[in-house]
Amino acid sequence: MLKDVQGERDIRKVPLKHVGIKNLHWPIIVKDKIKGIQHTVAEVTMAVDLPHDLRGTHMSRFVECLQDLGAVSPVALESILDTLKDKLVAEKSMLEIEFPYFITKAAPVSKQEAFLDLHCRYRAEKAANFELYVCVEVPIHTLCPCSKEISRYGAHNQRAVAKVEIRAEELVWIEELAEMAEAGASSPIYPLLKRPDEKFVTEHAYENPRFVEDVVREIALSLEHDDRIKWYKVTVESIESIHNHSAFACVEKSAESNSLYADKGEYL
Amino acid sequence: MLKDVQGERDIRKVPLKHVGIKNLHWPIIVKDKIKGIQHTVAEVTMAVDLPHDLRGTHMSRFVECLQDLGAVSPVALESILDTLKDKLVAEKSMLEIEFPYFITKAAPVSKQEAFLDLHCRYRAEKAANFELYVCVEVPIHTLCPCSKEISRYGAHNQRAVAKVEIRAEELVWIEELAEMAEAGASSPIYPLLKRPDEKFVTEHAYENPRFVEDVVREIALSLEHDDRIKWYKVTVESIESIHNHSAFACVEKSAESNSLYADKGEYL
Amino acid sequence: MLKDVQGERDIRKVPLKHVGIKNLHWPIIVKDKIKGIQHTVAEVTMAVDLPHDLRGTHMSRFVECLQDLGAVSPVALESILDTLKDKLVAEKSMLEIEFPYFITKAAPVSKQEAFLDLHCRYRAEKAANFELYVCVEVPIHTLCPCSKEISRYGAHNQRAVAKVEIRAEELVWIEELAEMAEAGASSPIYPLLKRPDEKFVTEHAYENPRFVEDVVREIALSLEHDDRIKWYKVTVESIESIHNHSAFACVEKSAESNSLYADKGEYL
Amino acid sequence: MLKDVQGERDIRKVPLKHVGIKNLHWPIIVKDKIKGIQHTVAEVTMAVDLPHDLRGTHMSRFVECLQDLGAVSPVALESILDTLKDKLVAEKSMLEIEFPYFITKAAPVSKQEAFLDLHCRYRAEKAANFELYVCVEVPIHTLCPCSKEISRYGAHNQRAVAKVEIRAEELVWIEELAEMAEAGASSPIYPLLKRPDEKFVTEHAYENPRFVEDVVREIALSLEHDDRIKWYKVTVESIESIHNHSAFACVEKSAESNSLYADKGEYL
Repeated sequence: MLKDVQGERDIRKVPLKHVGIKNLHWPIIVKDKIKGIQHTVAEVTMAVDLPHDLRGTHMSRFVECLQDLGAVSPVALESILDTLKDKLVAEKSMLEIEFPYFITKAAPVSKQEAFLDLHCRYRAEKAANFELYVCVEVPIHTLCPCSKEISRYGAHNQRAVAKVEIRAEELVWIEELAEMAEAGASSPIYPLLKRPDEKFVTEHAYENPRFVEDVVREIALSLEHDDRIKWYKVTVESIESIHNHSAFACVEKSAESNSLYADKGEYL
Repeated sequence: MLKDVQGERDIRKVPLKHVGIKNLHWPIIVKDKIKGIQHTVAEVTMAVDLPHDLRGTHMSRFVECLQDLGAVSPVALESILDTLKDKLVAEKSMLEIEFPYFITKAAPVSKQEAFLDLHCRYRAEKAANFELYVCVEVPIHTLCPCSKEISRYGAHNQRAVAKVEIRAEELVWIEELAEMAEAGASSPIYPLLKRPDEKFVTEHAYENPRFVEDVVREIALSLEHDDRIKWYKVTVESIESIHNHSAFACVEKSAESNSLYADKGEYL
Repeated sequence: MLKDVQGERDIRKVPLKHVGIKNLHWPIIVKDKIKGIQHTVAEVTMAVDLPHDLRGTHMSRFVECLQDLGAVSPVALESILDTLKDKLVAEKSMLEIEFPYFITKAAPVSKQEAFLDLHCRYRAEKAANFELYVCVEVPIHTLCPCSKEISRYGAHNQRAVAKVEIRAEELVWIEELAEMAEAGASSPIYPLLKRPDEKFVTEHAYENPRFVEDVVREIALSLEHDDRIKWYKVTVESIESIHNHSAFACVEKSAESNSLYADKGEYL
Repeated sequence: MLKDVQGERDIRKVPLKHVGIKNLHWPIIVKDKIKGIQHTVAEVTMAVDLPHDLRGTHMSRFVECLQDLGAVSPVALESILDTLKDKLVAEKSMLEIEFPYFITKAAPVSKQEAFLDLHCRYRAEKAANFELYVCVEVPIHTLCPCSKEISRYGAHNQRAVAKVEIRAEELVWIEELAEMAEAGASSPIYPLLKRPDEKFVTEHAYENPRFVEDVVREIALSLEHDDRIKWYKVTVESIESIHNHSAFACVEKSAESNSLYADKGEYL
């Protein structure tokens, strides 16, 4: 019998906030509003807390637990979290998956369809209660209101990314969050545009100039009016086309989140 | 006179948590404990809050303010934050700089010296009060206690990164945080090792096996015993040499940070 | 009828080596030696040449052509290349897809299975002839022969990546290239190891010390003995556990590749 | 005396194309056309060839040699390459440094100045002869000629990057390559623009629509007319503002480069 070094007593009296694995890549199946399911590939983080008197956790059990994950759903995620708490003798558990999600996007005039990729993240946590945070990064188009106003013709515009993070108690589809993000922009962006589509997008954006400040406010209003959403944070970052840096704006619902973890994502 | 579109009234009643610029690259001078100063290159984020009734901020003023930054120090950073609040008519301001910082590291036996790079970040914030967060990522070496214990010979080991974030009210040198991180590891790592050094490091690490859980606890104890440090968070991530994923552990001082921003860095 | 600006004559007399799209993300299906097929997600680059007298290409047609890609195979790739040449009136076409590929890896003692991700790339080119380049990046474990020899106990070891690029005229499975890479290393690495497995891997690696120079030579010999393989380049980069930089070695079959493109991947 | 394992005979008869270190970070001083010198930070790759009968190279000597690098110049680089060949008993040596380089850029109307960062790379090689490759990535602005032509108002535009790689036998300043790149674009981009500058840039770009195909051709013509430049490759990639992927075009001087290394940079 090989010795269990991780299971030794620890006398340093330092409890750990989390201990686990990250940068694990794994094929997953996620629910798709239109097609039922979608195959994709995730980057996975899994963690538990560790009491002050235990030396270490058993890292291989995280991967064992992940193998029980079927199609990703709130129920499936909570089940993994319960198993983690049980197998690792922990009071809190966490599972985070980041993955590209593909929506079929039709061009505005020609109606030709192709895949548009959204970067998504689910973070599920469980101590006494289960909580699920959903984050979607939606690529959008912004056209500068100032540049349009002061120039005789033209206006600088650029690709931007709207990052929408929510906590909800009922299902909110990735597709719904993407629609809110696009509605707040100067224009959605598309994987495939023929000339009549390009004309449409160019003119539509010119008619709808938006600062990053405007876009976060428009998205925040949509989220605020949705009763399913208990908390949100919206950040828009534009890859300024006249600068070599980005502009960004952020709005967060004032009510405190109940996350077990003080920080729910990067600063931005 | 060109119209000030950003200065328009906004009627959406959505105050913004922050608005600013990011991914700006800038040459800087930072204080060096040994050599006085050090030239390096920073990635910069700057932001202010925006009241609900203003449409936008004036992004070019961030870059104008940054030009007044001389050698980086708490006083210099607070001065920029005051100017930002003033020039952008804001109640809160924030400046974050991330940069490589080089320490001269002597090999343990041959004493040959070369540069070791640490990834550093200063985040300065000011509402009513000024607060400064310092983060240093220190590359270290960890040797697995379990692998050593159960194997007839050898033990898997790997490069890891100890990320030490603190809030202090007095000066704490990057060099001091790096020393604490290295002392908690199986061994420091070095830019230049001759054969007698390599023998020393190999044997020293074998004599000091450490899980990521051990390393965060050792570093936390050092920080806890330093009266200058009011808050800390330590995360160690090891690039597991027998897996294609990382192991990590995190400890955070229980007292709440007073940051204006709910999230002081990425999840890990 | 909207004007075709791309179709204008160009008088600058500068033919273009390639023109196309990149950083396009797309869900794909690839052949799997064991399971028949595998769903994954690709980053796509597509290009054609452009004669000196044409102003531009029609970028939207690249995405249209990609939609005809079924399960990835040499035949399917050549078919896309033919369509590209036809639709874009070009003499040469190129399609590159990069994607994570998952193999089921059994632990050496417990035989527990889990997914290991390999980073793969197919590059297909066609002028007069069709050529296919396959690249697989395989994570491996290397233990330093020098450190073992000179130390009383232990030896530094680390994760490394073996990048194997080949041109073949018959099917070579990703799984076959991964096996060659692993056979050249101190040990394969695994997604899931229980304690008896960890003991096995630790001791096996200690018994098989390898420099990066050794690993590239071992892999080159395996490739050299395989008649299907007409050209290869092998690069091994180890994330040195005692340094904050990498060590690397590279060997390339001396016979010139017939690639249309002078550079078949990054320098390393 | 510790055994020299690297110095053992090798009987596998596989010569190595290169063996060395990479991802080493190091502070450097580079020549600045205006200010004389500039402090910055480099990512370094160094390599030599290895004959078939030697087991390994001595990696620590690369770092020792690098310490002799003073202010970067062709002479200084060649000196390091000679020392490398000598100390590592090699026939070929290579040194590559990548670094941000800052130019002071004045806004077009207000003339306000600020730093603009360019990503640069020097690659120096020496077998019988010394050769130096210089690469500069210049951020630029492109406005789509098709979008302008077919739309009633506006035109989509975006940030793009022009990557200019050259081999020259006399000094060519980074600043000169940046100017050629900017002259080929719809507009340069700037770190700091006040409203009159933004109006100028917006209108100037609208008056100078350019496809990526146009930009590479314009830059190629400038390079072609410069007698100092013996070889060049120009790639422009635009972060398309109406798509979630990039468009790119590439032109390379037809005469073969004499590089010792088959591939002088990534595919693009």
